[in-house]
Amino acid sequence: MAGEILTLGRSELARLLRAIVREGDPWQAAGTAGLPFPRVVEGVQQLLRHGLLAFDGQRLHLTDRGQALARELGVQVAPEIRCAACGGTGVDLGFFAEVTRRYAELAQGRPEPLAAYDQGYQTIDSVMRRVALMVAQGDVEGKDIIVLGDDDLASLALALTGLPRSVVVIEIDRRLCDFIEQAARRAGLNITVYCRSLTERLPTELLGRFDTFLTDPTETEHGLLLFLEKGFMCLRKGEGHAGYFGITRIESNIGKWHVWQRELLSRHAITFTHILPDFSLYANWEDPDEQPIPDLPPFARPARTPWYRSTFFRVETLPEFQPPEDYVIEGGRELYEDEDAIDQVWRSPDVDMAITASVMTPAPTPFPTQLTLGRHIIAEFWKCRNREPLRGLKQVLEHAVRRAGATLLNMKIHRFVPDGFSALVLLAESHISLHAWPEYAYVAVDVFTCGEADPEVIVEVLKDYLQPEESAQITLERGLGPLMVLPALRVETETPSLRSSALPMGV
Amino acid sequence: MAGEILTLGRSELARLLRAIVREGDPWQAAGTAGLPFPRVVEGVQQLLRHGLLAFDGQRLHLTDRGQALARELGVQVAPEIRCAACGGTGVDLGFFAEVTRRYAELAQGRPEPLAAYDQGYQTIDSVMRRVALMVAQGDVEGKDIIVLGDDDLASLALALTGLPRSVVVIEIDRRLCDFIEQAARRAGLNITVYCRSLTERLPTELLGRFDTFLTDPTETEHGLLLFLEKGFMCLRKGEGHAGYFGITRIESNIGKWHVWQRELLSRHAITFTHILPDFSLYANWEDPDEQPIPDLPPFARPARTPWYRSTFFRVETLPEFQPPEDYVIEGGRELYEDEDAIDQVWRSPDVDMAITASVMTPAPTPFPTQLTLGRHIIAEFWKCRNREPLRGLKQVLEHAVRRAGATLLNMKIHRFVPDGFSALVLLAESHISLHAWPEYAYVAVDVFTCGEADPEVIVEVLKDYLQPEESAQITLERGLGPLMVLPALRVETETPSLRSSALPMGV
Repeated sequence: MAGEILTLGRSELARLLRAIVREGDPWQAAGTAGLPFPRVVEGVQQLLRHGLLAFDGQRLHLTDRGQALARELGVQVAPEIRCAACGGTGVDLGFFAEVTRRYAELAQGRPEPLAAYDQGYQTIDSVMRRVALMVAQGDVEGKDIIVLGDDDLASLALALTGLPRSVVVIEIDRRLCDFIEQAARRAGLNITVYCRSLTERLPTELLGRFDTFLTDPTETEHGLLLFLEKGFMCLRKGEGHAGYFGITRIESNIGKWHVWQRELLSRHAITFTHILPDFSLYANWEDPDEQPIPDLPPFARPARTPWYRSTFFRVETLPEFQPPEDYVIEGGRELYEDEDAIDQVWRSPDVDMAITASVMTPAPTPFPTQLTLGRHIIAEFWKCRNREPLRGLKQVLEHAVRRAGATLLNMKIHRFVPDGFSALVLLAESHISLHAWPEYAYVAVDVFTCGEADPEVIVEVLKDYLQPEESAQITLERGLGPLMVLPALRVETETPSLRSSALPMGV
Repeated sequence: MAGEILTLGRSELARLLRAIVREGDPWQAAGTAGLPFPRVVEGVQQLLRHGLLAFDGQRLHLTDRGQALARELGVQVAPEIRCAACGGTGVDLGFFAEVTRRYAELAQGRPEPLAAYDQGYQTIDSVMRRVALMVAQGDVEGKDIIVLGDDDLASLALALTGLPRSVVVIEIDRRLCDFIEQAARRAGLNITVYCRSLTERLPTELLGRFDTFLTDPTETEHGLLLFLEKGFMCLRKGEGHAGYFGITRIESNIGKWHVWQRELLSRHAITFTHILPDFSLYANWEDPDEQPIPDLPPFARPARTPWYRSTFFRVETLPEFQPPEDYVIEGGRELYEDEDAIDQVWRSPDVDMAITASVMTPAPTPFPTQLTLGRHIIAEFWKCRNREPLRGLKQVLEHAVRRAGATLLNMKIHRFVPDGFSALVLLAESHISLHAWPEYAYVAVDVFTCGEADPEVIVEVLKDYLQPEESAQITLERGLGPLMVLPALRVETETPSLRSSALPMGV
C-alpha cells in the first residue's frame, strides 16, 4: 500500500509513523522522527490527503487505514523510553544546579535568534547538560576552550563553572558578541570574544592552542566540513583533545552523516567517542516571523513545547593528531542551505514544490577550494572473462585514449611468463597502467589524467574489453588540496553478458 | 611531575585520576576511566609506588602529592553526572517492566561464562535497555533479527517482547545453545539457534535476510572487523536496516576505535547513529577462577558491584547498502587477544611485564585473508624544495629501484614545456610514476609493487630527492580482496632541512 500512493520510502515512512504514534503532537513527531523536516511535511501532507492520518486540531491520529499501514510497517508499538528524570539524556544536573540557576539568570534578555545567521538557541537545561558532559569527560577543568558560533551562550555556562583556564568565542552577530561581553563583565567571567565570521581566516593566535572546541555547524554537506575544520584548526596537536558539535537529522539525511563521518575520519587522527541522539533541545523561536509555519494545518500554529533536537557528537584526538591549516571559506548561502534545510519548507509558497528528494550524494565538493590538478581512478577488475587480453590490448588502449580526448606519448606493454602482463601508457595528460595476473583473472588498472581528458571513459573502455564480472574503483583528486578519496569504495557485480558496443572495429 | 616518574601519557593519567577521584572504588574507577584495563593497572601500580595514591583496603585516595598532580592535570572536579533513575543511559524501562521480570526469571540457571569463548554477560537491566532502545528505533517490531554470539541471552529478551518476526542466534557454546533452546521452549518463544562458530561460513539461508543484527565482537583490531562483517552479511540490502554492537574502552584503545570506524565507513554504505558510552554494564563473573585478580591490592579482591562497561553502537544502512560476501575466518587466539585484552593482566605472573604500550596501529591486517597481490602507495609531495628535479632524476629512480630490491625493465621520462615532467618506470614488480607541476612545486607519486619489493623505500628515496615540505600518502592493497585504503590519509609537515643521506653519490 505504502508504495502505491506515497513518495516516502518504506523505512522513512516507518520512522514517521512511529513518531506520530508515539508523540501525537505534530511538532514533537517532527522533532523525533529522525527525518529531514521537508520529508516529514511531505509525508504528513500525503498521509492526510490519502486518509491515513487525521488531525483533530491538536494531535495527529492514524485512521483505520492508517492502522493497517502501521501494522504492515511494524510500527504499532512505539513506546516512550526517554527517562523522565533526565529527558532521556542520561545526564543529571544536580552537581550543576547553582551554575544552571546563574546561567539562566545571565541569559535573560538575550538577543532573539536571526534566521540569516542560522540561529536558534538551546534550552537552558540542554546547554547545561552539554557543559556537564564536557566537564565529566575532563574537557573543561584547566582547559582552553573555544566556542565557534555561540547563539546558545554556551561560553557563559562554561565560564560559570569556574573550571576552564580560558574561554574564547568567535561569533559573527554583533548583538550576541556585545551581550556575551556585557554578561561576562557583569558576572566577572573571563571570556574573550572575537566578533567575526568563521568564513574568514582565524586570528593566528587562536590556531593550535585549544584543548576543546564546541560548535553547531551549518548542515550542508560542504558547509559542515568546512566549519568543523575550523574547530580542528584551533586544537593543539597530539592526543586527548576534544571536539563537540551538534548535528540534526531534522536538517540532514543520514547520507550526509555518512559522508561527514567518513571524511572526518579520513582527514584527522580522531575517533568518535559519543553520538548522543536528541541530546539537545532548542527553545522555540519567539518571533512569529522566524517560526516555520507551512501551509499545512498540523504545522500551521507554532509549537507549544520545544521540539527541535540535535544529536551531540564528541570526537577525541589520537596521538598522531595535527591541526589542519587555516583557509578562507568561499561561498554564500549555499554553505547554509540545501534541500534538507528547514528553511526550504517555510520560505516557499508551495510546500509540495519545495521538497526535493533527499538522496545521498557521497562525493563531497572539493575542499577547501578547487585545487585539483588531476583525477586518478584506481580500479580493480576481478573475474575477467577476456582470457586472452594481450591480443588486442594495444588497439584498445589507443582507442581508449582517443575516446577520452587524451594524447598518447608512449606505450610499453611487457609480457611476463607464463601469461601475466604490465602496460604503461604515458599520456600528455599523465598515465594509464595495467598489471594483469591472468592466473587470478585479475587486472589492476590506474588511469590518471589532468585537464579535460576524462579518465572514466578510459576505465569504461578497458572494462568493456576485459569483461570483469566484478569490479571496484575509487577516484582520487590529486593536486594541491588534501588527498581525497571519492566516492566511497564501490564494488560492482555484473550479470555475465557480452558488452562490446564500445569496442573499436577489429578488436 | 607526571612525565618524570610515570609511564602513562598526560591525557591517560588525567582520565585515570579523574575516575579515581570520582569513584574511589578501584574497580569502578577501572570501569569508567575509558582506558584499556592493562593501562589502569599500570597506572594505579605506579601511582601507589610513588606515593601519589593510597589504598585503604576499600578505596583509593589521592595523597597530598597526588592532589598536587590532580591540580596540575585539571582533575580536581570529577562530578557524578549519571542520572540515577536510568543509570546514565537515558532509557526508562517502565514500558518493559513485565518483559524484564520474565526475562530475569527465564535467565535463571544460565551457564557460567567461559573465558575461552570471551564470555561475560550483561546485567538484566542492561540487556533490557538495549532491547528498549532497539524497539524504540523501530528495529524490532515485525523485523527479522539475528544475534551473533549470545552469552547475554539477548535473544530471549528480544523474543519476550513479542514484537520480532523472527529471532535467530548463532552461538558456539553448546551449553548456551541448549539453554536458549530450552528456555525458548518453556516460554513458547520462536527462536532458532545455530550452534556453530562465527569463524565458519554462515549457513547460506542466513545471508542477506535480516533487518537487524546484534553482536558483541571480540576487540582485537582484526577480529572486530571480521566478526562485524558477519553481521553485515546477514542484513538485507538497501536502507533502514540496523546493526548494534558493544565495544569497550576497557579492552581497546581509541586508536583501534578510529581504525574500526574508518574501515566500516569505507567498506559499507552505513552511518553511525548512536555511540552511547557505558550503556551496558556486565555482571561480575561468579566463578573466582574467571575473576581478574592481579597481584595488586586494589584489584586483589573481586569487585563487589558490576564494573565492566561497554559502549553501545548503532549503525544504520543507507539506500546503497549491499551485504558483503561470506568467508571463513582463519586464525586462532590472536583474533581474541591483543595487548589491550584484559586477559593480559591476569594471565601473566608479573603485572609489570604483561603491560605493553597501547599504541595506535592504524593499518588493519589484510582482510579477510591474505589476498593482496600488490601494494600501491599514492603520495602527494607539496612545496618541493628541489627546483631542478629533472637533472638527477634518472639516477635517483635507478637507485630507488635497487634499494627496494626491485627490477627495472623500462624507464620513460618526458619533459613538458616549460618545465613539467612525467616519469614512468616499468618494474618486474609493477611500476613507478611521477607527474610534476613545478609551477606549483607539486609532484604526484605512485609506487606499485608486488612480491618482496618494498614500495615505501622508493617513496622515501624520492622524498629525500624532491624534498617536499609537506606530503601526504595512502597505501592501497591491490589484489583479490576488497579495495582498502591503509593507513589514514596522512599529511606530514617537515621543518625545512636538507635530508640527503639516502642519496646516491653524484646526485
